[in-house]
Amino acid sequence: MRLYSYFRSSASYRVRIALNLKGISYEHAGIHLLRNGGEQLSEAYRHINPEGLVPALVDDSADSEVILSQSLAIIEYLEETHPEHPLLPQDAASRAAVRAFALSIACEIHPVNNLRILKYLSQTLGASDEQKNAWYKHWCESGLQVLEQRLQQRPVQTPFCFGEQPGLAECVLIPQIFNAQRFQCDLSATPLLMAVYERCMALPAFQQAQPSAQPDAE
Amino acid sequence: MRLYSYFRSSASYRVRIALNLKGISYEHAGIHLLRNGGEQLSEAYRHINPEGLVPALVDDSADSEVILSQSLAIIEYLEETHPEHPLLPQDAASRAAVRAFALSIACEIHPVNNLRILKYLSQTLGASDEQKNAWYKHWCESGLQVLEQRLQQRPVQTPFCFGEQPGLAECVLIPQIFNAQRFQCDLSATPLLMAVYERCMALPAFQQAQPSAQPDAE
Repeated sequence: MRLYSYFRSSASYRVRIALNLKGISYEHAGIHLLRNGGEQLSEAYRHINPEGLVPALVDDSADSEVILSQSLAIIEYLEETHPEHPLLPQDAASRAAVRAFALSIACEIHPVNNLRILKYLSQTLGASDEQKNAWYKHWCESGLQVLEQRLQQRPVQTPFCFGEQPGLAECVLIPQIFNAQRFQCDLSATPLLMAVYERCMALPAFQQAQPSAQPDAE
Repeated sequence: MRLYSYFRSSASYRVRIALNLKGISYEHAGIHLLRNGGEQLSEAYRHINPEGLVPALVDDSADSEVILSQSLAIIEYLEETHPEHPLLPQDAASRAAVRAFALSIACEIHPVNNLRILKYLSQTLGASDEQKNAWYKHWCESGLQVLEQRLQQRPVQTPFCFGEQPGLAECVLIPQIFNAQRFQCDLSATPLLMAVYERCMALPAFQQAQPSAQPDAE
């Protein structure tokens, strides 16, 4: 497998964690989101992913080459093709709870705060750096607080979000926390999430997936 | 099953289509997003969905009551618990392609354009109505054009996005087109998407799910 990734991209980071948790080895292909006007927008990369977003995963192990995009679709594909070290629980209701947790980040927090949105805010709407930071913090902090509440309401408290092992929820949560720290969000209101974060960052699968451990890290 | 829904909410509309395509009957519970400061933020509704978003689905048919949120997690749950009339294809690579298509809308187009974001743009950043409309059109039109390209690149052209029947892709696409029309986006650059839209809107499952057919329609 070959992963087109940028060290700092949260969505790439999610897939790197999933690959590591499942013990799937892969080749790294760096796509620099800022250099050359954004390599993700180049014609060569658009041929792989017309959306012009990272990550993309190419799987050569199948009968014919499979090109995948959208981090959550990639992770579901890995789960279906490599069921060992499952990232989702077995029963439908629990699977739905884990997916809803992941989607809360992927659909409510992350999209509002990614690079192209922040760029539009400053370049087209004339937002100041201060306004941009306030925007980021608003969506990130309020979004994470809802997830904190979800963990508080668990019938049984567990070391990871949904049990004894990390899975899909952590693949999405850890990159978001990493991002929140980078933008100096206040995370004092989310102690349960932070405890999960600390436990994950003690594991090699997460350590090796983090931005600073990537070949294209700066 | 009981669906907490707002007639005009795209995410609710997605789940209504999925329920109809699978022939699952459900009870409708209206949550008005504007009235009373937003009924989705009321304490009563927060008890059902702490995120304060519609839709939420309550399934009483299971051993114990299951409360679900996040439209895509709900649709995956319906797919797993009611496999008849499948919304996803069988093989992993095709499933990933359909999910990536749905996630492109759910993660790249819709979140940037929902009510609370538009409200923040005007109330906190002081964006004019014109700037808000330009923002909406920018993300919606460019996002849909990427999906049009995906359909153009299909190895075989089919009546629906990924085959002979509508499924997950259409559950997410049709509400987004509906929304785009409401905001007067230019859809002339996406003829393949519009052809799928027309085919879907000829089917009772989609007609009965549309906003104007809901008990809470205005």
